Amino acid sequence: MQIGFIGLGHMGGPMAANLLKAGHALTVFDLSEGALDEARKAGATLAASPCAVAQASDVVITMLPAAAHVKAVYLNEDDGVLAGVRPGVPLIDSSTIDPATARMIGEAARARGNPFADAPVSGGVVGAQAGTLTFMVGADEALFETLRPVFSGMGKNMVRCGETGTGQIAKICNNLLLAISMIGVAEAMKLGESLGIDPGKLASIVNTSTGRCWSSETCNPYPDIVPTAPASRGYTGGFGADLMLKDLGLAVDAARQAKQPVFMGALAQQLYQSMSQQGLGGLDFSGIIKLYGKG
Amino acid sequence: MQIGFIGLGHMGGPMAANLLKAGHALTVFDLSEGALDEARKAGATLAASPCAVAQASDVVITMLPAAAHVKAVYLNEDDGVLAGVRPGVPLIDSSTIDPATARMIGEAARARGNPFADAPVSGGVVGAQAGTLTFMVGADEALFETLRPVFSGMGKNMVRCGETGTGQIAKICNNLLLAISMIGVAEAMKLGESLGIDPGKLASIVNTSTGRCWSSETCNPYPDIVPTAPASRGYTGGFGADLMLKDLGLAVDAARQAKQPVFMGALAQQLYQSMSQQGLGGLDFSGIIKLYGKG
Amino acid sequence: MQIGFIGLGHMGGPMAANLLKAGHALTVFDLSEGALDEARKAGATLAASPCAVAQASDVVITMLPAAAHVKAVYLNEDDGVLAGVRPGVPLIDSSTIDPATARMIGEAARARGNPFADAPVSGGVVGAQAGTLTFMVGADEALFETLRPVFSGMGKNMVRCGETGTGQIAKICNNLLLAISMIGVAEAMKLGESLGIDPGKLASIVNTSTGRCWSSETCNPYPDIVPTAPASRGYTGGFGADLMLKDLGLAVDAARQAKQPVFMGALAQQLYQSMSQQGLGGLDFSGIIKLYGKG
Amino acid sequence: MQIGFIGLGHMGGPMAANLLKAGHALTVFDLSEGALDEARKAGATLAASPCAVAQASDVVITMLPAAAHVKAVYLNEDDGVLAGVRPGVPLIDSSTIDPATARMIGEAARARGNPFADAPVSGGVVGAQAGTLTFMVGADEALFETLRPVFSGMGKNMVRCGETGTGQIAKICNNLLLAISMIGVAEAMKLGESLGIDPGKLASIVNTSTGRCWSSETCNPYPDIVPTAPASRGYTGGFGADLMLKDLGLAVDAARQAKQPVFMGALAQQLYQSMSQQGLGGLDFSGIIKLYGKG
Repeated sequence: MQIGFIGLGHMGGPMAANLLKAGHALTVFDLSEGALDEARKAGATLAASPCAVAQASDVVITMLPAAAHVKAVYLNEDDGVLAGVRPGVPLIDSSTIDPATARMIGEAARARGNPFADAPVSGGVVGAQAGTLTFMVGADEALFETLRPVFSGMGKNMVRCGETGTGQIAKICNNLLLAISMIGVAEAMKLGESLGIDPGKLASIVNTSTGRCWSSETCNPYPDIVPTAPASRGYTGGFGADLMLKDLGLAVDAARQAKQPVFMGALAQQLYQSMSQQGLGGLDFSGIIKLYGKG
Repeated sequence: MQIGFIGLGHMGGPMAANLLKAGHALTVFDLSEGALDEARKAGATLAASPCAVAQASDVVITMLPAAAHVKAVYLNEDDGVLAGVRPGVPLIDSSTIDPATARMIGEAARARGNPFADAPVSGGVVGAQAGTLTFMVGADEALFETLRPVFSGMGKNMVRCGETGTGQIAKICNNLLLAISMIGVAEAMKLGESLGIDPGKLASIVNTSTGRCWSSETCNPYPDIVPTAPASRGYTGGFGADLMLKDLGLAVDAARQAKQPVFMGALAQQLYQSMSQQGLGGLDFSGIIKLYGKG
Repeated sequence: MQIGFIGLGHMGGPMAANLLKAGHALTVFDLSEGALDEARKAGATLAASPCAVAQASDVVITMLPAAAHVKAVYLNEDDGVLAGVRPGVPLIDSSTIDPATARMIGEAARARGNPFADAPVSGGVVGAQAGTLTFMVGADEALFETLRPVFSGMGKNMVRCGETGTGQIAKICNNLLLAISMIGVAEAMKLGESLGIDPGKLASIVNTSTGRCWSSETCNPYPDIVPTAPASRGYTGGFGADLMLKDLGLAVDAARQAKQPVFMGALAQQLYQSMSQQGLGGLDFSGIIKLYGKG
Repeated sequence: MQIGFIGLGHMGGPMAANLLKAGHALTVFDLSEGALDEARKAGATLAASPCAVAQASDVVITMLPAAAHVKAVYLNEDDGVLAGVRPGVPLIDSSTIDPATARMIGEAARARGNPFADAPVSGGVVGAQAGTLTFMVGADEALFETLRPVFSGMGKNMVRCGETGTGQIAKICNNLLLAISMIGVAEAMKLGESLGIDPGKLASIVNTSTGRCWSSETCNPYPDIVPTAPASRGYTGGFGADLMLKDLGLAVDAARQAKQPVFMGALAQQLYQSMSQQGLGGLDFSGIIKLYGKG
């Protein structure tokens, strides 16, 4: 398939590389010369603008840092995707942005005759490189089926969440809960330690009890509980605290627009903001435990 | 075995009944005539005081509402357990109380030559009736092995958490995390609903992703996601919000004494306090979702 | 003076009327026919666009609901203020918006040779009608002095906060604190009532002690403590909860961009969001006390 | 008057000294030899127990660290105040404790024929030394009038808050609000600084606007805004953060017993707990601003 790919950063770069490996032809665009260079060496064709990418492609994927970039890349009158894409060509945005912008882009695309799917991912840079990402997809069923082979080239799981925007909703709701439960595990582990129970013992009890969650079982923030967790290697790798902070911002903002209180979510956001202010935003998000005192 | 049992309430009543069914001889005490009557009919011998229970028993179990009762039952000079128990007889407190009081009682017991285990339970009234409770036990290894047959008569799992007090620590840390993750699930589900994703779809995505936890998988607070969950039967049954509020109080108080901040835990406590103030404290603790607006 | 006024809503309408009363000539623009009609009757000249207002004026004032409107009114290439204003004409934005947008507009204005002041107000609709507003002004000293007579036509106090953007900063920081202290008073009053002290007695003690603040002295949220407070007339009049919610949103967003944690501010935002979700957003912001249970 | 004084610590010591200076005869008790020695040198008569103090006095004042001490000093059967006091002798407890214990002590006293007043103070060690304390008094009117001369020997203001327990209620409600507004000021000042307004300018605007409060005007937590504030001398002197933490604990606990949510109060408690955990509990409570990042 002739695929267009716009946004070759930490996530987009390896995703594009995997599509090439899967045998697709790629036309790409990015603002970074270095990223373009690497893509060219891997076999991609370079284009001069999002518009030019779109003109050359049977499907277009975008992977961008934030909603402002997504709006510009799709909607710019001169050189945006919608200015160049042929009617009927499906468009996929895998950026993590707010659901309202996703819906707005989707409407603009459909107005020009282009199906649109929001398809944010989970799995991080490691998943992008290994081709094991999960795609949370907002698309009608027909489009979802059409896009399966494209997602397959970059990930292992794809789940249809509903109509346009629901991919983003699923992602921010999941990550809201993830942040809250991670902080909950941090508080429980530090409280237990302060009170005098062995942290490993506490973790094993929680993990067979009602407190168990992904953050306690797989990514426990207390060091040396889960050998493969970032906490056991100095909070490196994993899902960066500043990225979690970005997702919490999306969740809390979306909640505001929906007039939906999210007490815990807002507190989580402030705790990650404090972590980031202390210069720890580059650590894995399980490093939030550092706000709760020394070991 | 000749077992003494003090405290025949919602939990203690069925626990005592199961010990009788398991073939043990029971001497019991409670302040409620009704509870005593029922125990007598089930085959227990009544005693006139905790002291009298202790005098007649080879092991004593207590199951009481709060630390004040535990202190009185063990330490009262006239008629407390320690005033009557023979040296060497092991003592088990299955009440949920603060770890400091558990340790204090343990020391008082050992000073008189009696091994002491704190052994709070999880599983609720349903688990107490079905004999499927989990015991979180603070005891040395020898004592833990000695007590196995006693716990077996009332539950399915027993886990040794460490020395005296660690049973209580494990329980309050687990329940602190449980409250936080339950509220996190409530916020994520209500946010998703507000933004327009199908709640069942959102739950299924969360449950295969990093947000998954016991509260999302087994006890989802959104109605009709998990058919067996209290949320699907009007928040009846399950673990009452006022009981969760009690446990959060223990956790936050223990944190205070340890000078350990628990930001999320304190917020959870206030949210449950608000729920209780609104007259909803008798509902299952997943009913906290009602604070987040109508469906 | 020949003044241009854009935005004739609940605030802008009476502000414009007061400028007319003060003897200034006004050219106005608004999207509402009704508002324009009223302005015309009061003696204003109508213009067809922000651009047309600017062309006709020696100073331009804008009073708009949010940053998006401010951007459009100033920057639209066809019909925006900057498209029509003569170089040297000073521009005043009295909307409450984020400091970053204020600075951006200020730079765009200066690039065209126009001095710009951000000058959000406090005092509400009542102050706008009575001509007793306070202006918090971000402008250099020369501009501030130039604009004094304009502000005098609409308000009683004007304070220079620093360079462009600082008017907005002062307003959102003050209102962040105002929201927090109002909720603090609500909690203290309700706690006192629950514990059994006479609320009037408690208020009088607080007001002569270290807890005293504008929210306890002048706008006490407990009914019938301060006869002139909205709480004593069913929480009508005053500063609407939904407006406070908007200002908290600006404060928390600005904090996010500055990576500055605001734990209490974020909690205040969620509490006002909950109030708004319950349909109480039209009440005075002191109505937050209703979240703390019945009297 | 023949006054008994029990508890000669940081507060009680100077209070007793001032009573001596005012010409009263004092019989005193404390556990510290040093404190007793100092009192003896100042002219006090030493007694061997609270009971002995009470036997020798026409009025008894206690100034103790916490409720447990108050209970022991009044209620101990062997050597407590109530074991020795003559009927009719009024009793004053100036400790800061929970209202429920104050009421319980009051009932025990009245049962023996002794009027009882809870009379916690504000003003700190500085006020105790200078004799400028404020007494918040829970007592009926007749008792309040009777005790005026006693309070006058130690302070400048005395306010009757209502019946027994209301003195404590007034104090914890005021200090709950004080903690919240102090943190609110800290957040507003740090946000303003982060966004680029001059902190002194911001403070002056807030202090003439709706954000003004004792914490912004008199004890501003930002350094060098208020020259006489602890913030301008390294957060020394003033009201220690650990003492505020104690009072917040009383407020949040009392709220729990009343099933009264105090969201902000609970968050304030955790923030002070974090401050204390970081080893800063000895600073003035305005030092909470240190949690919000470097200047």
